Amino acid sequence: MPRSYNFSAGPAILPEEVLRIAQQELCDFQQTGSSVMEISHRGDVFGALFNETQNNLRVLMNIPNNYRILFLQGGARLQFAMVALNLAKLGDTVDYVNSGHWSQLAMETAKQHAVVNEVVSNCHEQYTAIPEEKKWLRSAKAAYLHFTTNETIHGVQFPVMPIIENNVPLVCDMSSDFMSRPIDVNQFGIIYAGAQKNVGIAGLTIAIVREDLLIPTKRSDIPKMLQYATYADTDSMYNTPPTFAIYMAGLVFDWIKKQGGIAAIAKRNEEKANWLYRVIDNSDGFYSAPVKAPFRSRMNVVFRLANEKLNELFLETAKAHHLMYLKGHPVLGGMRASIYNAMPMDGVKALGEFMQAFAKTHLPH
Amino acid sequence: MPRSYNFSAGPAILPEEVLRIAQQELCDFQQTGSSVMEISHRGDVFGALFNETQNNLRVLMNIPNNYRILFLQGGARLQFAMVALNLAKLGDTVDYVNSGHWSQLAMETAKQHAVVNEVVSNCHEQYTAIPEEKKWLRSAKAAYLHFTTNETIHGVQFPVMPIIENNVPLVCDMSSDFMSRPIDVNQFGIIYAGAQKNVGIAGLTIAIVREDLLIPTKRSDIPKMLQYATYADTDSMYNTPPTFAIYMAGLVFDWIKKQGGIAAIAKRNEEKANWLYRVIDNSDGFYSAPVKAPFRSRMNVVFRLANEKLNELFLETAKAHHLMYLKGHPVLGGMRASIYNAMPMDGVKALGEFMQAFAKTHLPH
Repeated sequence: MPRSYNFSAGPAILPEEVLRIAQQELCDFQQTGSSVMEISHRGDVFGALFNETQNNLRVLMNIPNNYRILFLQGGARLQFAMVALNLAKLGDTVDYVNSGHWSQLAMETAKQHAVVNEVVSNCHEQYTAIPEEKKWLRSAKAAYLHFTTNETIHGVQFPVMPIIENNVPLVCDMSSDFMSRPIDVNQFGIIYAGAQKNVGIAGLTIAIVREDLLIPTKRSDIPKMLQYATYADTDSMYNTPPTFAIYMAGLVFDWIKKQGGIAAIAKRNEEKANWLYRVIDNSDGFYSAPVKAPFRSRMNVVFRLANEKLNELFLETAKAHHLMYLKGHPVLGGMRASIYNAMPMDGVKALGEFMQAFAKTHLPH
Repeated sequence: MPRSYNFSAGPAILPEEVLRIAQQELCDFQQTGSSVMEISHRGDVFGALFNETQNNLRVLMNIPNNYRILFLQGGARLQFAMVALNLAKLGDTVDYVNSGHWSQLAMETAKQHAVVNEVVSNCHEQYTAIPEEKKWLRSAKAAYLHFTTNETIHGVQFPVMPIIENNVPLVCDMSSDFMSRPIDVNQFGIIYAGAQKNVGIAGLTIAIVREDLLIPTKRSDIPKMLQYATYADTDSMYNTPPTFAIYMAGLVFDWIKKQGGIAAIAKRNEEKANWLYRVIDNSDGFYSAPVKAPFRSRMNVVFRLANEKLNELFLETAKAHHLMYLKGHPVLGGMRASIYNAMPMDGVKALGEFMQAFAKTHLPH
C-alpha cells in the first residue's frame, strides 16, 4: 500500500525514515544477532543506546544539568496523579489552569490527593482560547501551578508560557506539543509528555524534573513506583524500562537532529498549521475553526463542517484518498487533523487540497 | 550477523518467526499504509487486533469467563503495590510466601500498604527449594496469599501450585513462567506477569483478575490509574495502552498456537531444562546447580563454575560462540541461562555442548 497520511491524535504518525531504520535493524541490532527488543536493559549494548538517547534529548532541548530526565510508563494520565502525590504534602494547595479537556482531567485527578485551586477556566467559552493571565487567581502559596501547553482535543495551545510568580514551580503536561517548538526548560519545575505523539510510540512517558523538586518526592506513604526520586536515583532502571519504546524515541531524536533541531521543526510546524487554517478560513464558511486565532494549536487542527450531515461522507472520502483518522474526539465531535512533527508538509497539502475539492463539490448552490 | 542464542532473563529472546513477521509488516500493517505503532488505539483496525489478542490468550490459557484480562503498564514491580492497594483494606492481613528475591521484594512492597504475614521463608537455605507447604503458617483470615511461581534470579519454581485454604484468593507473580506450562486459572484470584520474558517485549504487564475481586478495588483513596477496576471497566482503554507491545504479544500468542499450544510448549520446556541440568550434573563438579532437583526452574537455569576464576573466560568464550547474556544476576553471582518458550532446543544444545567443551579444556588435571 502507498503510505497513508495519518492524522491520528496519538498513537500518531512517525517519520517514515524512522520506521525504515526500525524495520531494517529489527532482527539484528548493531550486529548483535539479537533484536533490540530482546536484549537486557542492564547490558552494555542497551546501556550505550540509553545514554545516547538521553544525551540527545538533553542537547536538543537544551536541558540544564540541574534537571533530570526520567523514562516512565503509564502515560500522562499516571503523571496527573504522580505530580500531586510527589509535590503536594497533605493539605497543600495546588494551582491548576483549566484550558480544556486534559487540563481539567489533570485537575480532577489532583483533587484526590491535594487541595486544588482552579486558577482560571475557559470552560464557559467552550475552551476556544487560553484565558488572559492577568485574570488568573493564583493561590498565595501553591506547591505548584499546573497547565497543559496544548490541548489535544480542543486544539488550544499556549502561545507563550505563563510567568513564574512567588517561585511556584510550573508543572506542565506537554504531551501533544513536546519538542515541537523551542522552550526554555529553566522556566519549568516539571515537564512531562506521553511519547506517542511527537516522540515515538505508546508506552513511554518522559518527565524532565528539576532536581530540587526530587527531595520532597521521597515520601513513605506512596508506592516507590510512583516516586520520581525512585527513577532519578536509578537512572530510570528501578525496574525494566520499556526498552523498545526508548529505542524508538532515540530514532526520533536522531531524526529531529537531521531536520535541523527543534527550531527548524517549529518553523515547519508553523507553516503546516498556517496552511491548514488558511484553507479553513478561506472556505466561505464550509469549514470553521472554533479556536480564536492566537491560541490555535499547531499540532491539533480542530474544525467543523457547517453541514454536519456531510461528516461521514467527508471522512469516507478522505479515507479513499489515504487521509486517515480525521474524526474529532467524541467529547467535541467534528474533525481534527493532528499534524505533529512527523507529518510532512505534503500530507498537510494533500489534506488541504482534498478539503478544497470536497467543499467545491458540496457547497450549497 | 547469524542469530545469537540469547539467554537474557528479560527482556528476552523472541521467536524468530515473530520477529520476521513484525519486521515484514512494520511499515504497513494490514494494508493500512501505516505502521501498527502509528494507528489509534480507538480505531477499528487496532480494536480488531486487540480483541483477537485477548481472545487468543483466553483460549490458550483456558481462562474462564469470570476472569478479566487486563493489559497494564509498569511491570510486575507496579503489581507488587497494586495487589496490596487493591485487595487489602486498611488493617487487613496479607500472606506472603518468601521463596526468593522477587517474592521477598513483593512482600517488602506490600508492607507499605498492609499488615504482612510471612507465611514461610527459605532464605536461610539460600532459596534452593520451595518450602514444604505443611510448614507454612498461614493467617486465619488473609485478604490473599501471594507467591511467585518462578524465581527468575534464584531459579526456583513451584512444581505444583499451593492449595487454597479458607477461600483465601491465591495471587501470583507469574512473570517468568507465564504460559510456559498448563495451569488451572480457576485456582487463582489474580495472576500477573510482565510480558518481556515469555509474552513479548518490556512495557506490557498482563493481569488476569477474578471478577469478584474487582469489587473491593474501587477505592477512592488510591489513584484511579492503580485500580484494577479502572482497566476492567474500560477494557484496558482508560488511557492509551502500549499498543505495539500488545501487538507483539498477539504475535507470540499466534506462535504458541502454531507450536501446538501451552501443553506442547511445556513438554519442550521440560526437555530443554532436563538437557541442561544433565550437562551440569554430569560435569564431575565442574559445574553445579544449587537448587534442589524437584524445584529447579525450567525457565532460569542457575549454575556455578567450581572455579569461579574462570567466570569471565567462560562468559567471553560463550559470547564468541554467540551464546549471550549468561552472567548470573548480581544478587547471586555465577551463571544463569534463561530458556524461555522462545529458546529453541538447538540453542540449549549449543550451550550444553559449549559447556562440555569448556569443561574438558579447563578441568583440573
